[in-house]
Amino acid sequence: MLILSRNNPTVKQLASLKEKKGRRTCGAFLVEGEKMVRECVLSGMEIVRLIVREDRVGETYSLPTLVLGADAFSAVCDEKTPQGIAAEVKLPVYPLEEPKKSCILLDGVADPANVGAIVRTAIAAGYEELYLIDCADPFSPKSVRASMSGVFFARLMRGERKEVLKALSGVPLIAADMDGENVFSFVPPEKFCLCIGNEGSGLSEEVKSAASKTVKIPMGEHTESLNAAVSAGILMYELKNQRG
Amino acid sequence: MLILSRNNPTVKQLASLKEKKGRRTCGAFLVEGEKMVRECVLSGMEIVRLIVREDRVGETYSLPTLVLGADAFSAVCDEKTPQGIAAEVKLPVYPLEEPKKSCILLDGVADPANVGAIVRTAIAAGYEELYLIDCADPFSPKSVRASMSGVFFARLMRGERKEVLKALSGVPLIAADMDGENVFSFVPPEKFCLCIGNEGSGLSEEVKSAASKTVKIPMGEHTESLNAAVSAGILMYELKNQRG
Repeated sequence: MLILSRNNPTVKQLASLKEKKGRRTCGAFLVEGEKMVRECVLSGMEIVRLIVREDRVGETYSLPTLVLGADAFSAVCDEKTPQGIAAEVKLPVYPLEEPKKSCILLDGVADPANVGAIVRTAIAAGYEELYLIDCADPFSPKSVRASMSGVFFARLMRGERKEVLKALSGVPLIAADMDGENVFSFVPPEKFCLCIGNEGSGLSEEVKSAASKTVKIPMGEHTESLNAAVSAGILMYELKNQRG
Repeated sequence: MLILSRNNPTVKQLASLKEKKGRRTCGAFLVEGEKMVRECVLSGMEIVRLIVREDRVGETYSLPTLVLGADAFSAVCDEKTPQGIAAEVKLPVYPLEEPKKSCILLDGVADPANVGAIVRTAIAAGYEELYLIDCADPFSPKSVRASMSGVFFARLMRGERKEVLKALSGVPLIAADMDGENVFSFVPPEKFCLCIGNEGSGLSEEVKSAASKTVKIPMGEHTESLNAAVSAGILMYELKNQRG
């Protein structure tokens, strides 16, 4: 069946996945583009259905598939120049629990592109468990895109600050902050949780006081701070490297 | 004198600084926001004039100042919620010359936010000299913003690939590429040029063949690459750290 109208109820429902409310209501998120959809399928995420633009129908898919006309398809997509294939994917639910290995806590990271880029780097650097307090939604189209399939492989645990800190109570927290010791001479414990704060205001007082160590990236006199995703990347790799 | 109309020739000229063509014609670029303007003034960059929205006129500035009504001011600015102060700043001209210290070559970095974030990190990590081949313009509003005043302190040298490689011929080039050796066990020479390529396609063949060494950031099986600004940040800091 081919749906042409962007006013079709199913199309409207899929278009609502661009917003947090729609994702919560449907329990699903949107993955766009051929490469991302393929990696999503291979990752084992639960695909609700593929969404294919009519000019792409010739290709064979062994999954439930919805075919849309060009206008309806572009109503569903967030990308400016959609590739003609997308997927509705079930939102994974990870209950808050203690980390098995070294992990990451994001405390108020507000920019979805930063959240996505941090997830991407975390998976690359071997941190599969991420805890999120008051952050941009990692399943927004912008964050999913910036994560480059990282969100398919990460355990993204979200919760209130108190609950998250309770789940992390058995692990030394390492806070990233300007007042810390130089991370390049710091020797981390075997298992730790690296804590990254908000782009402008840094870590919350609660996380700062719960931390057992504080580290900084040394910077020249003309710089006050680094981009949150850049500094998270430097710290994630440096702390692993020091332990390796 | 207060200018109200966005059709005023001076306002139109300032608005043209948002585009590369306008910046080239005027030999100037735009700096927006109180903090950025203050840092620009302190950096010693040559300010053509301050541009102030009429509700901000009470403040005292000892520089040539143009006062604009709200509508004309927002026509000039690129930011969605402008703060009421901006500056027209003379484009710095850095002739292509050999680097004095370890430096960075950007080869085809296309996203202005990545160019800006890399400049920001470079200044923080102590690389003041950057060479740019076929990159997004570092003086676009988006790049200036992402650099967080980094563009005021960097020597940004732009040129054709051949000319740039000639200027760098006395310095060992270190290429960032997936096929390289692990940067965390690599010992760099005392003075080097780190080469960062395009977000999708990496370094050009010319730069790859001119490089004396190639380094990579090790990554888990689920990751093909990192964000260009993140990987540049990790490499810039790691190479300095290895030498320190």
